[in-house]
Amino acid sequence: MDYEKILPGIIKKNDKKILLAVLDGVGGIPHKETGKTELEAANTPFLDGLAAESSCGTAIPVLNGITPGSGPGHIALFGYDPVETQIGRGVLECLGIDAPLEKEDIAIRGNFATVDGRRIVTDRRAGRIPTEENRKIVALISENIREISGVKIEIRTVKEHRCAIMLKGSGLSPCVSENDPQKEGAPLKSITPLDKQSEKTAKILAEFEDRVIELLKKHDSKAKGILLRGISRLPQIPGFAEKYKLNAVCIASYPMYRGVSKVAGMDIAPCGETVDEEIETLREIYGRYDFFFLHVKKTDSYGEDGNFGAKVKFLEELDNKLRVMKNLKFESIAVTADHSTPAVLKSHSWHPVPLIINSPNAIPDDVKKFTERECAKGILGRIYSKEIMYLLLACALKLDKFGA
Amino acid sequence: MDYEKILPGIIKKNDKKILLAVLDGVGGIPHKETGKTELEAANTPFLDGLAAESSCGTAIPVLNGITPGSGPGHIALFGYDPVETQIGRGVLECLGIDAPLEKEDIAIRGNFATVDGRRIVTDRRAGRIPTEENRKIVALISENIREISGVKIEIRTVKEHRCAIMLKGSGLSPCVSENDPQKEGAPLKSITPLDKQSEKTAKILAEFEDRVIELLKKHDSKAKGILLRGISRLPQIPGFAEKYKLNAVCIASYPMYRGVSKVAGMDIAPCGETVDEEIETLREIYGRYDFFFLHVKKTDSYGEDGNFGAKVKFLEELDNKLRVMKNLKFESIAVTADHSTPAVLKSHSWHPVPLIINSPNAIPDDVKKFTERECAKGILGRIYSKEIMYLLLACALKLDKFGA
Repeated sequence: MDYEKILPGIIKKNDKKILLAVLDGVGGIPHKETGKTELEAANTPFLDGLAAESSCGTAIPVLNGITPGSGPGHIALFGYDPVETQIGRGVLECLGIDAPLEKEDIAIRGNFATVDGRRIVTDRRAGRIPTEENRKIVALISENIREISGVKIEIRTVKEHRCAIMLKGSGLSPCVSENDPQKEGAPLKSITPLDKQSEKTAKILAEFEDRVIELLKKHDSKAKGILLRGISRLPQIPGFAEKYKLNAVCIASYPMYRGVSKVAGMDIAPCGETVDEEIETLREIYGRYDFFFLHVKKTDSYGEDGNFGAKVKFLEELDNKLRVMKNLKFESIAVTADHSTPAVLKSHSWHPVPLIINSPNAIPDDVKKFTERECAKGILGRIYSKEIMYLLLACALKLDKFGA
Repeated sequence: MDYEKILPGIIKKNDKKILLAVLDGVGGIPHKETGKTELEAANTPFLDGLAAESSCGTAIPVLNGITPGSGPGHIALFGYDPVETQIGRGVLECLGIDAPLEKEDIAIRGNFATVDGRRIVTDRRAGRIPTEENRKIVALISENIREISGVKIEIRTVKEHRCAIMLKGSGLSPCVSENDPQKEGAPLKSITPLDKQSEKTAKILAEFEDRVIELLKKHDSKAKGILLRGISRLPQIPGFAEKYKLNAVCIASYPMYRGVSKVAGMDIAPCGETVDEEIETLREIYGRYDFFFLHVKKTDSYGEDGNFGAKVKFLEELDNKLRVMKNLKFESIAVTADHSTPAVLKSHSWHPVPLIINSPNAIPDDVKKFTERECAKGILGRIYSKEIMYLLLACALKLDKFGA
């Protein structure tokens, strides 16, 4: 991306503050009966008023037509290229449970599975064992397999049949094939290195797999083996301090988003479970940072559930809470989403997301509502999500002139 | 293009159908007297109604300011980069007559020309000899020049002075200079290799040229030599089945468009000469494919002729015929063009083309007319033509989420 060539020469520190407010999955498509999207159906006077005094537009999270997961959606909002900077599944699984994953560690997503005596996978999810049972198995493994070939093994429960594994040590590399046959009735695949550097890692994982199977033989559970997937490492990208000279903090009640923020080198503020607690946290730590990433989850959750009405109702409640943005002083504010999650589709989607850039240095346009269709008429036009950070920095006067 | 990095991991097959309707050269610029473009002057209630319930926008075929030929225009609509994936003229000529061109063959566009004893080109088109005369000359050459240096030579009549030549054999390469001096009164240029790999090809073509001149000396025709142009090979690109998991078919009454579709691996449906026959074909084969490329030629032809009124009248007739789109069931439909052909300019142009994406999963906007200026206000904004395929795939729910 051309920004990388320019940024180091023009980024500067000042005391102005930036707020990136991400309403996860806020975008929708029209309800079949009313013809209105969730945002169009909701009464959101604060966000509409903010739009009226802001530059508006829409943002493409990755590329036209591409539906992003939460990882690429946020990586783009943080100003990194979401195709170049991909976060492995194993890394996401670890970050999603606040596991202490370090730059050089190997992260793996594990599924406890039912495996027969000939290593045929008969249930890839071991009957979705209860989380409590998962915890017992994880304790058993932790006690018995602390390290292999000098590399520390850490395993954590995620939920049901899912766990996360970290390898901590030297000489590791994540280019290793997975053992998951992807279907039932097939044998576990052998774990093989995909390059020279990954031979040690493959050997360790193959031994780990054997020892887990051995341990689970005597254990009373449907879990008789482990599928090792998404073998990966933290993306090696410069964090916000290095890239933007920002002292950045994440306020997110869900672990996954804290995890992605850690990838970008943000501090993580403990913030409770609710939007009210998140906003209270924002107030409390306002003096200590110059960049604030505020993440609101439930817009996405209700979209995924296909609960159009609940998403609308939540938006109306949220609208009032967001007034804090104007009470605290930010030089630039973005309100947007990591992707759309239309309740009609019950899933993430590819539709561009509405975007507000509020700043004394932005040009207000005719848009008076924070909706997909109104923002599409705004002065910002249609941009890529990875450009938003640069507009926020510019509006906060943190970017010097490029060239003489 | 970044799409290539993402697509293999997210493309999936389902039973939903896609229609790409290309109204060749449909875009125009305003008539000097009325201030209206062809689309603005035409009464097109069906297309306007479709626009009203669709996402609208405009598409840039190649790059702003660049006027595309039919090749790049369609390559972009098929989702390939039109600058990376260029189709040689020789290839297009062969494909345009349904000639059996294979991946490794060298394809050449030939012009029979009048050439004097000193090899000066005196008429680059040999007085546009009748096609019947062309056939006799082609038969003569075919009989006498079957192969050179172990490489098989196949020559076919196109029409008037135009023919197509294929070289079939090993060790060939298309980086060879043309012999066409591009103007009359100048001598035939010598055919030279432009790289090491092309030496054999250059030698064969030089000998072919000599032998054709020799043969035509005794033949009663204005054709006394041959211009060898557009020396090229099929682009080595993945077809629709591989790239998109689509079972795709082309319905186009003109050979050139069938040819470009073959490059993209589409099946070719025999479809007659008229739009009515094309549409009847669409109905007939509807059950057998999941992607349909429907090509309408006359919008372009009338534009090239500078016949503003005929283009308007044809659009009005066409409008009613296109109702078939809504009678058959498609999950996503694009109506657009490969480029503009303003009657005012009597040629292709660089102007972005109007675009409709119709789907239950697309967001309708305020646009209520299928015209250049109204579509420019649509929610899709201005995109590149090569992105259209991805929107069609997304709206037909054929793209999985990218990243977790």
